[in-house]
Amino acid sequence: MSVRSFAVRPLPLRPFRVALATAIALALTACATPSTTFQQAAPGSAYGVTAMPARQSNLAQLSSWNAGSNRERIVDFVRRVTTPGSAEYVAPLDRLAVFDNDGTLWAEKPQYPSVFFYFDRIRDLAPANPAWRDDKVLRAIIDRDDAALANISIPDILRIATLAETGVSQEEFRAYAQHWLATAKHPVLGRPYTELVYQPMLELLDYLRANGFKTYISTGAFEELTRVLAPVYGIPPEQVIASRWKMRFETTANGTRVMRLPEVDFYNNTANKPVSIEQFLGRRPILTVGNSDGDLGMMAYTADRKGPSLAILIDHDDAVREYQYSAGAERAVAQAAQRNWVTVSMRRDWRTVYPAAR
Amino acid sequence: MSVRSFAVRPLPLRPFRVALATAIALALTACATPSTTFQQAAPGSAYGVTAMPARQSNLAQLSSWNAGSNRERIVDFVRRVTTPGSAEYVAPLDRLAVFDNDGTLWAEKPQYPSVFFYFDRIRDLAPANPAWRDDKVLRAIIDRDDAALANISIPDILRIATLAETGVSQEEFRAYAQHWLATAKHPVLGRPYTELVYQPMLELLDYLRANGFKTYISTGAFEELTRVLAPVYGIPPEQVIASRWKMRFETTANGTRVMRLPEVDFYNNTANKPVSIEQFLGRRPILTVGNSDGDLGMMAYTADRKGPSLAILIDHDDAVREYQYSAGAERAVAQAAQRNWVTVSMRRDWRTVYPAAR
Repeated sequence: MSVRSFAVRPLPLRPFRVALATAIALALTACATPSTTFQQAAPGSAYGVTAMPARQSNLAQLSSWNAGSNRERIVDFVRRVTTPGSAEYVAPLDRLAVFDNDGTLWAEKPQYPSVFFYFDRIRDLAPANPAWRDDKVLRAIIDRDDAALANISIPDILRIATLAETGVSQEEFRAYAQHWLATAKHPVLGRPYTELVYQPMLELLDYLRANGFKTYISTGAFEELTRVLAPVYGIPPEQVIASRWKMRFETTANGTRVMRLPEVDFYNNTANKPVSIEQFLGRRPILTVGNSDGDLGMMAYTADRKGPSLAILIDHDDAVREYQYSAGAERAVAQAAQRNWVTVSMRRDWRTVYPAAR
Repeated sequence: MSVRSFAVRPLPLRPFRVALATAIALALTACATPSTTFQQAAPGSAYGVTAMPARQSNLAQLSSWNAGSNRERIVDFVRRVTTPGSAEYVAPLDRLAVFDNDGTLWAEKPQYPSVFFYFDRIRDLAPANPAWRDDKVLRAIIDRDDAALANISIPDILRIATLAETGVSQEEFRAYAQHWLATAKHPVLGRPYTELVYQPMLELLDYLRANGFKTYISTGAFEELTRVLAPVYGIPPEQVIASRWKMRFETTANGTRVMRLPEVDFYNNTANKPVSIEQFLGRRPILTVGNSDGDLGMMAYTADRKGPSLAILIDHDDAVREYQYSAGAERAVAQAAQRNWVTVSMRRDWRTVYPAAR
């Protein structure tokens, strides 16, 4: 997830109890949204899947990667760390690979999918919260007033995230996220969000796992939407590191539950990504992929590992098939060049961007 | 880890900056400690092992478990959740099993190993901190004054943990924990700590993994010592959920590092165990094993799962081969009986307690 600067229109802000608000920068542009229906998720798993999705057998062949020095450097790195007896051999226990999500594994333009998700959730909750119409920003969301939302402020986005994501149990919210991901379509790109993942990255994930790597996501987004999405990448939900709300365990007449509280517990971006890597993994990954300055901390933490490591930066330079932008990635681009990390050109290195429609 | 009550001798306490101090209850009894030498850990992995330890092929046969209703209930549960087409079938993705550590996977009597670990670390750091001799408690540790330590207060234990565990980088501290675990012997039981794990639990862990379960530890102890220990159980370090210190990412002239700060970030016990399960796993386990009231929250959270689940309580009732105690487990024992959880009798259900000496 990128930290981007953009014009903030001053608004009379209401007080809100969210910590770290000033640290969170989210761009907001087009705001047309899909209509979603709250339906039952598929049974069989807490995550609506009965098993990890069957992978195409050719995924691990990196067939969507054009031949060239970047593909070769990735393959060469994997060969070196997996060859027994090699000076750079890495035990399977330590073959940890950590991927950013927004802009690295799926599209983050023209807007982070999680912001579209907040807007849909606000609209779904609005009938039960009639007073929300008295709030200028909430009314704009409910009325799909794209013009009014175009300049929404950062604190307002976080205030909306808090309303959209908290005050319910983990299981209630997870069910909502499952339904949304199973039914919503991207308002601009017109496809299900699950088809807006990058095909070459699906292949890279599979290629790494086929070589004994354990693949993790580390995202600045809040955890549940990413966890529901993770099986699409072949990643189990417990291998997602994310921003999180404070939580509270409760015992009720109907049993126990964990409630999501309206206060940020941890914002997983920039200098916090290496911290959460230590909290969750307890050591440096040997491979990290990111696309923005928000990923620079974990990329440096990986590259500074004693022993072999590979940091990969995804450069959004494909104005035709995806988007061309570098705002919010300036420092990462400079570091990648200076330290000779792999800078992947979406335009030149990727044969395709998205998987074929289902 | 148990929350136990014990007599606290009033001491003139110094102020200290650790949150949640009052929530932490640690019993302290005999305090004779081993002499440890700071040596190099085995190379090949960040965790001093080149691979997960080779497991004996018969481990998964539960051969150290006596036949009886408890063994049968465990085997029957695993059979039901792993039989395709069964009404209680659980997809492999959701076969999560969470184990407490102290008193569940290894011995916690006569003292938590982590407290012996703090004492050794204090003694190793003492030469560089001569002012510590002015502190009554630290002096007692340095001088191995067991009588003075017998009544050490809870805040003092936490103050000592803070001195022993923080102010260094994750990697410096991990190296120390590795050396300690590789070299220290239990002062009372006289064996390496790595041999004070329960043989029947090693078998249960292997049995579950052989049936598609993913095994996690959730401990009230701080994370690094448990992560260094985890491969002994066949568990990778990233599958350890634990108490943790606040951390800070730093860039220095020698590269990047994550520092351990002298403030508790999260105390992983009682009502916090279900919270960290949601933070790390994002759903309820289907099997949980604990031994004390500190585990009751996660046991209830597991047992309240929609769908099949199994909560197992380890009852320390073996005064001959281990220890007999129920202090700190009173509520868990009562709940287990009331809700018909499996209460394992160490005396009757376990053929052996510890693995054979190496």
